[in-house]
Parts: sequence; structure tokens; C-alpha cells
Amino acid sequence: MKILVINPNISDSVSALIQSEARRTASPGTEIEVATAPFGVAYIETRFEALVGAYATACVAAERYGNYDGVVVAAFGDPGLQGIKELLDVPVVGLTESALMTAAMLGQRFSIIAISSRIKAWYRETVERSHLASRLASIRSLEEPLKDIGSVQQDYAGRLKELCKQVVDEDGADVIIIAGAPLAGLAREIRDELPVPVVDGVSSSITQLEGLIRLQPKKATGGSFTHPPVKPNQGLPEPLERLLNTQLRNCF
Amino acid sequence: MKILVINPNISDSVSALIQSEARRTASPGTEIEVATAPFGVAYIETRFEALVGAYATACVAAERYGNYDGVVVAAFGDPGLQGIKELLDVPVVGLTESALMTAAMLGQRFSIIAISSRIKAWYRETVERSHLASRLASIRSLEEPLKDIGSVQQDYAGRLKELCKQVVDEDGADVIIIAGAPLAGLAREIRDELPVPVVDGVSSSITQLEGLIRLQPKKATGGSFTHPPVKPNQGLPEPLERLLNTQLRNCF
Amino acid sequence: MKILVINPNISDSVSALIQSEARRTASPGTEIEVATAPFGVAYIETRFEALVGAYATACVAAERYGNYDGVVVAAFGDPGLQGIKELLDVPVVGLTESALMTAAMLGQRFSIIAISSRIKAWYRETVERSHLASRLASIRSLEEPLKDIGSVQQDYAGRLKELCKQVVDEDGADVIIIAGAPLAGLAREIRDELPVPVVDGVSSSITQLEGLIRLQPKKATGGSFTHPPVKPNQGLPEPLERLLNTQLRNCF
Amino acid sequence: MKILVINPNISDSVSALIQSEARRTASPGTEIEVATAPFGVAYIETRFEALVGAYATACVAAERYGNYDGVVVAAFGDPGLQGIKELLDVPVVGLTESALMTAAMLGQRFSIIAISSRIKAWYRETVERSHLASRLASIRSLEEPLKDIGSVQQDYAGRLKELCKQVVDEDGADVIIIAGAPLAGLAREIRDELPVPVVDGVSSSITQLEGLIRLQPKKATGGSFTHPPVKPNQGLPEPLERLLNTQLRNCF
Amino acid sequence: MKILVINPNISDSVSALIQSEARRTASPGTEIEVATAPFGVAYIETRFEALVGAYATACVAAERYGNYDGVVVAAFGDPGLQGIKELLDVPVVGLTESALMTAAMLGQRFSIIAISSRIKAWYRETVERSHLASRLASIRSLEEPLKDIGSVQQDYAGRLKELCKQVVDEDGADVIIIAGAPLAGLAREIRDELPVPVVDGVSSSITQLEGLIRLQPKKATGGSFTHPPVKPNQGLPEPLERLLNTQLRNCF
Amino acid sequence: MKILVINPNISDSVSALIQSEARRTASPGTEIEVATAPFGVAYIETRFEALVGAYATACVAAERYGNYDGVVVAAFGDPGLQGIKELLDVPVVGLTESALMTAAMLGQRFSIIAISSRIKAWYRETVERSHLASRLASIRSLEEPLKDIGSVQQDYAGRLKELCKQVVDEDGADVIIIAGAPLAGLAREIRDELPVPVVDGVSSSITQLEGLIRLQPKKATGGSFTHPPVKPNQGLPEPLERLLNTQLRNCF
Repeated sequence: MKILVINPNISDSVSALIQSEARRTASPGTEIEVATAPFGVAYIETRFEALVGAYATACVAAERYGNYDGVVVAAFGDPGLQGIKELLDVPVVGLTESALMTAAMLGQRFSIIAISSRIKAWYRETVERSHLASRLASIRSLEEPLKDIGSVQQDYAGRLKELCKQVVDEDGADVIIIAGAPLAGLAREIRDELPVPVVDGVSSSITQLEGLIRLQPKKATGGSFTHPPVKPNQGLPEPLERLLNTQLRNCF
Repeated sequence: MKILVINPNISDSVSALIQSEARRTASPGTEIEVATAPFGVAYIETRFEALVGAYATACVAAERYGNYDGVVVAAFGDPGLQGIKELLDVPVVGLTESALMTAAMLGQRFSIIAISSRIKAWYRETVERSHLASRLASIRSLEEPLKDIGSVQQDYAGRLKELCKQVVDEDGADVIIIAGAPLAGLAREIRDELPVPVVDGVSSSITQLEGLIRLQPKKATGGSFTHPPVKPNQGLPEPLERLLNTQLRNCF
Repeated sequence: MKILVINPNISDSVSALIQSEARRTASPGTEIEVATAPFGVAYIETRFEALVGAYATACVAAERYGNYDGVVVAAFGDPGLQGIKELLDVPVVGLTESALMTAAMLGQRFSIIAISSRIKAWYRETVERSHLASRLASIRSLEEPLKDIGSVQQDYAGRLKELCKQVVDEDGADVIIIAGAPLAGLAREIRDELPVPVVDGVSSSITQLEGLIRLQPKKATGGSFTHPPVKPNQGLPEPLERLLNTQLRNCF
Repeated sequence: MKILVINPNISDSVSALIQSEARRTASPGTEIEVATAPFGVAYIETRFEALVGAYATACVAAERYGNYDGVVVAAFGDPGLQGIKELLDVPVVGLTESALMTAAMLGQRFSIIAISSRIKAWYRETVERSHLASRLASIRSLEEPLKDIGSVQQDYAGRLKELCKQVVDEDGADVIIIAGAPLAGLAREIRDELPVPVVDGVSSSITQLEGLIRLQPKKATGGSFTHPPVKPNQGLPEPLERLLNTQLRNCF
Repeated sequence: MKILVINPNISDSVSALIQSEARRTASPGTEIEVATAPFGVAYIETRFEALVGAYATACVAAERYGNYDGVVVAAFGDPGLQGIKELLDVPVVGLTESALMTAAMLGQRFSIIAISSRIKAWYRETVERSHLASRLASIRSLEEPLKDIGSVQQDYAGRLKELCKQVVDEDGADVIIIAGAPLAGLAREIRDELPVPVVDGVSSSITQLEGLIRLQPKKATGGSFTHPPVKPNQGLPEPLERLLNTQLRNCF
Repeated sequence: MKILVINPNISDSVSALIQSEARRTASPGTEIEVATAPFGVAYIETRFEALVGAYATACVAAERYGNYDGVVVAAFGDPGLQGIKELLDVPVVGLTESALMTAAMLGQRFSIIAISSRIKAWYRETVERSHLASRLASIRSLEEPLKDIGSVQQDYAGRLKELCKQVVDEDGADVIIIAGAPLAGLAREIRDELPVPVVDGVSSSITQLEGLIRLQPKKATGGSFTHPPVKPNQGLPEPLERLLNTQLRNCF
């Protein structure tokens, strides 16, 4: 099977981290391709940046349509995720969504460790969209401005581990979610030093998506995840326009 | 004061309806300007179409930045609303948000009347984002495919009135919200025939935004509605890039 | 238009604060009249005091019935608000309700700054009645006994500003609501020193009520905000008895 | 022990029904005294009528203060209940509250059978105040105008039984709450014909209050149910004024 | 009336505490019998231990079936409570359930004081099952390993009192629930030193169950608390098998 | 990897259905072993039957401890799931849990199709325990008594398909969950005739568990999913006693 992992941001260094963790996790026979957004910002911390990332991700997904069996929207906060699920006829998952579903089977309450204080509101609202906010023990984050988005894990390893311990000891977390593509792979490295299971967005998105693809869910032709109805549009990138205007492969 | 009303869709006929209701509602001294999205779809019914409309609205808001005292995002479902609030340093309201806040002061439970069945999921999720879903009595909608988005009010007047009566009699609504820019102005015409107050998205957005502008709320420099932090970006339309890269007028 | 602002308490000094902020906010052409409850307590901090204030407010509203286009119930906690909405055929708003609706358009989460510790439970329950409790970041209050209800703003200016900063920095508030009629007008004075928008109950009640009156919502003749059904009553003040026994001007 | 049951309405016929069911339920040694509100309406169906009944109930409770070991607020909807709990230093329960707590131990979901359609909104909000709304399967009511508030049980026995069956078969109720003082005692008569336990507001208020009195809970001197702080007041009935101004027997 | 109190754990010392508090509380004429689980663990702190206690309690209830008018499941956390309610045709209450219902009538928000940190997750989930979690101010617990489950009250009296004060002062509790059978009776001893009412699981279970028995609720023959349908089973203790296979006394 | 699938009921015919669907789904290299509960009932429809199945499942899991890399609790309703997660040091999933997590990534709202009316309450409460009840569109079920638990799929194929269509058309489901081990495999057969994705409990439990095992989450040594603390116990089956008394392989 072939999985397209879209980094909704323009940072190639983050795409590299994503790719490396995705490949470590993928089953034999799974092909991972990582695409970086052609426009947008360096990394998403706010609702506005997510709005831009959502559109960029949709453009990439449309452009490569037909060349994958499933898509990962690879920024925590899942920009545009639900809309892209409507658009495509293959399974689509997001980092937050996958991490939440995985964490929910490893314990009752989870906490999120994030890279910046600003990002916390956006993450909380993402959890609310999944209706799992009442199982969220806390969100804790680094407070200092980041030196370099590509080396957050190295630069703040100690502080991140401390935050992980606090959410268990003080907030009652049964599971820790290490959030954000810039932290992809960190869970794997520090897991043995922590008292509870640690979930990584990228690796859980790969196992979740592989599982979905194997279950072969049909594309909805009823309910609210049907392809958007064909109707006049203008000014859209050609692949997106084509995808909006055409009947999909699988769904009719 | 000068209000920019952005239609997140490409339909000029709907922009005309919006403009007409907005002007009927505006206070003396309020100048209304309506802009139509330069790209996107004819009208938003789904999460994906909202994703496109959100980006288009942001582009328009950036392009005209400096020429308004407040912005209305004029599609029910409020595409991109919270993100655009972060971006700008003037008040921004959406049709759903305004209608909900207005309805919430006229009764305890409200219902939404919509133009298509497909649109209902997107509206319900918009209400959930406001955390007012437990006051939502119901959403009812037209079921047939629309003949023409510009003449929905005329084409389905009778059926729309029937739906209004059902939500009061069967669903327990204290207030009716007539949803969607294509229905702008209908509330005004049928209100005398209905047993409860009827709220229109466009007119309530104008009164709410005028009220906010008069209260002169300062632009947040703390909390989660601060302007997105300046960071590398690429490939964005120039006005948006400029707005992301510059210090704002009011906030520092 | 003519707005009756009812202070549900017996404190003339607080009525003066209310009047002054209401007049500063009102649009040209809006006439503000402030009435003080003829019986009750000095200021409402508890559920029981609110029960008394509710009845007093209803008596004043009945007594002056016919002489206003809308009513403000001018104590935070909105004593009797929903009942009085049933009774009258013009829009009625409360300080908490107005502040919440205004705050909800300026950010996602808000905190309330209150004048006494005792008052916090009553405020929280008022927010719960609006179903917006999950957007309430916190309620913080002065802890010392008040010297004089008419000079709280002067006596505790520094401490109140500190509380405002704490709710942003520690509780995650996007908006601050300065609660309680005794603090009317304070928001205006300290807003420039605070990092997020500050909402004042009195001024937001005036803009919200003006907006509602301009929208001319009809009096409900169906749903749960219809006038109470005519039925035997006894022992009520004559204006209240008359209002309960008579058909209303606008609603039939 | 001596229990004061206050009918918040002016209907002596309803007081007689209440008294008769209360006495049938009371333990040996429990003295039941029923008082009828000296002012107010014939029966409470709306938020406004509840506002009046709340004040009337408080006045009666104050007038007879010292002559009871506990109080029942004997109208469904519990007018003024939480405020009166603050005021007094003995246990106070309401019909809805008692019925909900009793029903909650007999099953997971309950439905309410009510005497009028208008009353349903007020009942639903009462259940919301207890935070048990998510266990409420439904509220069903008589729809016709009542002939006589004192003979509702006789006049509509068949229809009320039908409603009881519907809430089990169609709404998933595990327990039926027969609501409203005018229906006091009906549960006892029809219980054998119904498939699930039936809870009566009056009888459950008596068993709950007897239980509380036997547990001898102390009057709060901390938290939000402390007696309202002594402060200036005016224009109140003398017993209420005295109760507000004096230190209570038990709490200091 | 005869009440069977089942200690779901194997600790006779805790059964003795339960019995002594139950007898102190019981009305004249109420006979209390306490049974200790024949298998299981010393005291329940976790979901797994509750699973074992649930089955043990069911076995005891089946074995003594016919010899009681009501049952108390006497461990905080109410192991197996809802299932045992289905099984039996007499009222069944749990310590948590009874304490919550009692506390809910004495204030709006309550806190739970527990004997170990580990137990907090299980208690929180028990409160969630009652749908009252939004009225839970906090759960605080002893942190040290217990010396002896039979003498917790003596060993930690001071610390437990401190925790009680903290939940009022810091967490906003109106009522304190002293949780867990090992603390049975403590409430009675320290109540005068605390600022708010204190609820004990055992004593409130007795008053609640006595009240229910007096109301004589019928066994459900509809809804979800009907006796489990007769169907093939194997390997169960004989009394349980008999109870599952036979028509019940009261319900058909 | 080796997966132990435990049927909490005594029906070998259902175990056969489970085994067959589990093997169809399993990845190459995954070994599936199905165990049937040695005691209990034919199939679980009620809270009481779940209580019995929980204990039986725990006994089986203990007996075979050391011979598996993960466990599926293979009855919808997940009897004992959270407790067994505490007990073991390998991942454990339930049919409901897995189906919910899978469904939650295929749409926003889901409905459950069940085999009996009685079972609906237990399923709804299971969904509540996951905190996803607000995404549950409906539960619909067969109404007639089942002829044979092993042939439900054949006997009621038409009616089950009808129910599936109703939840999409009338209840707004985006995804259908076919619930209950007796329906294992049905989803696969009817999926092409339905308008939305269909999720099967057994197959989603296998993909979810395989994913978890591949992620190698560590056994909690902190938080509420730590192994139950070692303490006195008695009367337990020897393997369970040993597992409770011993340090686990992986967690210390």
C-alpha cells in the first residue's frame, strides 16, 4: 500500500523528521511518500496558520490524487482534516486524531506535550472537535521561543521529559501524547524513562492508517462525508478544480 | 464606521442579497462594503467547501486591510472566522456566531432553518464550536436540490415557512434562525406570520459588529487571539504575506 | 428609543455608576432611565439575594410598563432575567448575558473578575444557565470584605488589575469580563493596561439591547417565552397583577 | 421531627393533595404542616411564575422560622430552592430535586410526566440545574387546557397512564417521575399498571427530607451555602428582614 | 425491614466499621445484616479489584436472596451496582450513589476525600457514571501507603481533616463526602470541626435505602432494569444460577 | 505476534464466528487464538451479564498469561475491559472500543446496529464510558426474540440492512457500527449495499490491537493503569491469584 504523508507547512527539516519516523513505523510493504506544502508558514501554532495549512494540504492532496491509498495530514491540530476526508475516496487521518484514538485505548485520560505556549489553544480546540476534551488531563508546553524548528527535540530534551513527568504526577494522565511533527520520533527515545505509555502523532497515524486501509472502508455516498456536490467554482488550482468537478473512482 | 462584508463564495447574486439586507440594517453613519470571494465555489455546504472559503476570505480581508473598522464573514458556518480574528486588529464576526448570540438573548433554545440537507452537518459542527449545541433544538432544511442559489427565498417560501412552524411546534424552539446568506432578508418578510422571534444572520451580524466597534475592544497582545507570531512563510498572496510579516497598527 | 435600566438592589450609589456608564455607551437618540429597586439588599452576592432582587426587578418593570422599548436587568447574575423576558413584550437583557455574548465574539475563553469570593458560586451558576460554562476559563475575585459598595473601583484598583493579568497568564483567558454593577465603567479605565479585550456588563448590555431593539423581534406567541397564561392570582402589587391579567400590546 | 411543606402557589385544593400524600408517606413521629403561599398564582408553569413563587415561599419560610426541622418547597420546578437553602439552617428539599435523586437510584434514565405543555421548558431547566439532564429520557405532558387544577388526576387519568407507557416504550425511560403537586398521590394509584418504578415528587421529598434530618447535617459556615452576609436591606417583610439580619441558631 | 449490607471485600475489620455505622444510623425497626465477600481482595482501589468485588457481591446477594428487603453494596465505587439492581427485585444502593444523592441536596458542588491516591481514578469514573461529574469540585486523598486498612481513621485523623478543609477553601466544595468503607463513621466524629456538611457513604446508604424501601418501588418489567432474560448459562454458583433461571417473586 | 481473543460468553458458535472474522482480518504473521469463557451466559445483553462476563474474561486472561502479545475482549460492551488493562502488561482492546475509535476516523457521527432491544442501554453506557456519546447518532436494534444466537446474521439479514439504511437516512450517521460478536463478519458482506462505511467490532479490534502491539507501548508504572497494588486476597482462582501477587514481566 502507498501512503502520502502531507506536511502542511513549508519546513523541509520537519518533513525529514516526519519521514524518518513514518518509515520506522511502516509495515513491510507499505510505501511512504512525504510531501511538503508548497506555500504556508514554517510551523502551525495558531488558528490562522491552520487555515492556511488546510488549504495548502488540500492542494497537495488534489495534485497527487490517484497516487496513494491513504493520506496523513501531518501537523498536530489536523488542519483541514474533515474537509479533506470529504474530498477524497481513500482513508485520511490526522496526527492529533490518530494520537487521540491510540491514547484512548491505552488509558482513560491523556495529556499533550507541546512545543509552544501559543499552540495550546489550537490543540485544545482540536481535541474538542473530537469530543474527547473531557478525557484530556492537561496540555503542557515549552515556554521559551524555539531556537530552530528542526532541532526542538535536541534543544529541549530535558525540559520535555520534565513536562512528561508533571502531567502524570500532577495532572493525572494515564497516557502522554507528544504533539507536533517537530517532535516526531521523540516518544521512541524517551519512552523507557517515563512511567506511562507515550504516543507519537506520526507513528500512530501510520498504524491507524494502515489499519483503515486494510479494512477497506467504502467511500460514503450518503451522510456528511460524501464528496462535495458538483457545482460552479472558479479560480481554484487545476487539480483541485478537476477533483471537485469529477465523479470519483470509488464512490458511484 | 466602515464595515467590510466578505462573501466567502463566488456568487454575485448572493452578494447582492447580503448587501441589501446589510444596508437595510445598518445604522446611519455606517458604511457597508460587500466583497465577493475571487475564488471558491458557488455556495458552501460542506466542510471542504468551508476550507476553501476560509482561505478566500482571509485573502480578501488581507487585500483590503486598512480600509475597514470591522469585518463580517458572510457565510453561515463562519468559514475561517476564528483564524481571521487572530489575523486582524479590528472586530470580526460571522453570520452563525452573530445569529447565535442574538438568538441566545431572545430565548433559551433555537432552531436553524437551512437550504439543503447536506449543509446540516456543517452547521451543527459550527454550533458545537461555539459550545452552544445543547441549546440547539434542531436543524431543519429544504430537501430538494436548489433551482438557483440567488432565488431560493422566492422558490421555496412556502416550504421554508412550514419548516419554521415545525421547529416551534415539534422541536421546542423559542427562536428561529434563518440560516445562510442566500436567505438573507427572508426573516424580515415572514416574521409576522411566525409564532417566535426570527433571527437573520446578516442583520444580526451588522448589529453585533456595530456594537463591538462602538465598544472599541483592544486587539489582544496576550492570550490565543494575538496576531500569529512572525515567522518564515512562502508562496502567500502579497497582502497576506505583508499582514503576517508586519506589526499591526493597533496592537503594540 | 427608550431603555429602562433596573438596578435590582437598593444602592443609589451603584445606580449612579450604572447610569453614568450606560449614558457614556448609549447611541445618540437613546434615552436611558435608571430605576433602583424599592426593596431588597445593598448588593447581590448569593442565590437568596438574587431571589429577592428578581422579584423587586419584576415589580419595577411592571410598574413602568409602557414607558420603555427595552429593559436591562442591571446586576451581574441576571436575577429573574428569563422570567421577566416572558412577562414583557419588549427585549430584556441582563449584564451577565450581554457580557457573555459580547465576550464570546472577542475570543474563545473568558474569565470573570468579581468583587467578592462569596459571589463566585452565583456567577458560575449564571454562566451555566447560558450553557457557556465550558468556555469559562476562571472566576477570580477580591477576597477582603468591601469597605463601601460605591467605591470598590477606587479602593481596589490595583488588586483588580492584578486579577485581570492572572486570568490571562495563568488561566488562559482570551477576554476579561469585569463583573458586577459596582465595577461599571472600570473596564474603560484600565483597558489600555491589559493584554486582552475587557468587557463591561453595563456597556455591553446597552449595545446588545440597542441592537435587539433595532432588529424589532416579535413577542413570542409560541414556545416557552410566551406571556404567562392568564390564571387566578392574588396578593400581587397592582401593576404586576394588571400585567399578568391583561393581553399585551404587541403579542396578539 | 416537624416538617414544613410550603406550597408556593395560592391553590388550597393543591395544598390538600400535597398534605394528604405527605401524611401517607411520613414516618411515625413525623409531623407534617402544609402552608399555602399568601400571594402568587394558581399554579406555576413558567419561569416568571416560579420567580413569584420563589419569593412567596421565602416569605413563608421566614415567617415560620423556628417551628420546623426541615422544609419542602412543594412545587415541581423547585422555585427558589437553592436560595432558601442558603437562608435557613435546616435541610430544605424540593419536589424535583427529591424526585430526581430517588429516580436516579431506581434506574439510569428517567422521564417526567407533566400537566401542561407550557411547563416543559421550566422543568427541563430545573433538571439542567441539577446537572442530570443527560439522564433525562424525555418530558411528556397533557396538551389540553386543564379544567380544574384540583382534579387533574381524575380528569386525565387515562391520558396520564398512556404518557407513562410511551416514555418507557418509545423514550427508553427506566423510571417515571410524575411531576407537579397537582398530581401528588397519582403514582401510588397507577403504579401497578406500569412497567417501571414510578416516583412521586411529594412522597420522595418526605423520605429524602426525613433522611437528611436524621443525618443532622450541619449548617454551612463556609462554601456557597453559608447564610447570606449581613448587609443593609430595606422594604422586606419583617420576618425576612429579621432572618437576614440575625445570626442563625445553629451556624455560628 | 431487613437490610443486607454486603462488603465487596474480604476484610472483616472493615465489615465491623460498616456494621457499626449502619446500626448507628438505622431507624428503629430496621434490621442490619452485614456480609463479607467470601473471595476477593482486602480493599478495592482499582478497576480490576472492582471487577472482582462486583462478582463476589453478586454471589453473596444471590446466596441470601429472599432474606432481605434491600441491599447496600458497601464499597465506595459501587462495584457491580447497576448489574445487581437488574438481578434483584428489591431496592439496591451503593455507597457512592447514596453519598452523591445526599450531597446533591446539601449543596451544589461536592468533594470526595479518599484513602489512597490510586483510588482517585476509580472514584472519578464512578461519579461520571452517575453523570454528576460536573458537580464534583475535587477528589483529594491520603498519599502515603496505609498502615492497616482497619485503622485508617485513627492513623490519619489529622491529615484527613486537613484535606477536608482544603476542598472547601481551595476547591469550592459546598459538601464533603468522606469516601470508602474504611472511613465509615469518621464524618460523625469530625463534623463539628468542619465548615460544611459532611456526608458518609454508609450512613447515607442506610437512609437512602430505608426511604426507597418505604416507597415500595415496583420491580421493572420494562426498560433496562428488568431481570436479565432467561437464557442458557453454565458454571455459575448454584444460587446465582437459580436466580438467573427463575421468575422473580415480585415482578411478574 | 500472538493475539488471544476471549469470548466472554459460553457460546462456542459465537466463538467460531469471531475466530473466522479475526483470521480473515489478521496480518500475515499474526496468530489468532480464540478462547471461550468457561462460565457465564450464552450472550451478554445486560449490565448483570456483563458483570459475570467480566470476571470470566479476567480468569481466562490470567490462566493463559504469558502466552500472548495482546488480548481482545470479544463482546460488544467490553465487559471488564478497563480492569483487565490494569491487570495485564500487554495491550488489551475491546470490540466496542475498537469499533468506536475506527468509526471516529471515518466520520463524525456513528450509529450502532444491535441484535436486541434489551442490549441498547448497556451499549449506550459503554459509549458513555468512552466519552464519545455526543458523537453517537443512534442505536437501533432487532426487536424480535432471537431464534439462535449462532445464526442471527442469516436469520435477520434483511432487517439488519434496513436498520443500517435508517440510521443514515433518519439519524444522520456518517458511519455504521455493526455491534456484537454474533454479527461478526456481517459488515464485510453487506458493505457494498450501504451508503456509508461499515465497521465491524472484531475486524477493527484486530487492526487496532496489531497497531498497538507494533507501537510497543510500555506497561504503566504510574497513573491509574498500573498493575493493582499487591495486597491480601483470598478465594481467587490460582492463576488470577498468582497474577495479582507477582511482579509483572515488563513493568518493573
